[in-house]
Amino acid sequence: MTDDRETGLELNPKFDANGLVTAVVTDAADGAVLMVGHMNAEALAKSLETGTAVFFSRSRQRLWQKGESSGNLLIIKEMRVDCDQDAILVIAEPKGPTCHTGERSCFYRRLTDGKLERA
Amino acid sequence: MTDDRETGLELNPKFDANGLVTAVVTDAADGAVLMVGHMNAEALAKSLETGTAVFFSRSRQRLWQKGESSGNLLIIKEMRVDCDQDAILVIAEPKGPTCHTGERSCFYRRLTDGKLERA
Repeated sequence: MTDDRETGLELNPKFDANGLVTAVVTDAADGAVLMVGHMNAEALAKSLETGTAVFFSRSRQRLWQKGESSGNLLIIKEMRVDCDQDAILVIAEPKGPTCHTGERSCFYRRLTDGKLERA
Repeated sequence: MTDDRETGLELNPKFDANGLVTAVVTDAADGAVLMVGHMNAEALAKSLETGTAVFFSRSRQRLWQKGESSGNLLIIKEMRVDCDQDAILVIAEPKGPTCHTGERSCFYRRLTDGKLERA
């Protein structure tokens, strides 16, 4: 069940049929999950190059640097890959609220008894 | 830029073309990101029904309850949805190592200068 991708030290992302890996962003300050996005190879390269989180927008079908319009960049402190390299963890310093709604995190609602409530 | 899915209190997951949402699991004890998986509507329903994390395996194309063979279940303490409801945060109590490699978290390698190293 293990292979080089899982045990090795080479970065070898397993992009899905759409050329994407999942990217989870946490706040370096306290580990809170801020958002989930997707990266293609170019977004990953741009993230590494700029030191800020760059994603591929599935809805807009283009690269977007988080905060490019709002200024609320995500400054990358550390990146990790998961066992099969189809997900990336971005540990970042957020330069403002991460969610476009103005919330600190996109996960601002809790599921309780089939309904959502503010977390 | 906001709509009922983002501001409302109805659970209305935005499944992708493959019928999936992304599910991020964190450890209720300290917030560490343990794994990333995917859920279809049935996996989400089973997770809520059983109180344990159930995913849809893209490689095996079937439901799997995390820990069904290892016993390392993820006991769900809280679930959250993100703004556009295409990602779910599962805050759980892990009954053992979450990664099938035996690591506590699937994110056991850090990306440094283009190479991976143990985190």
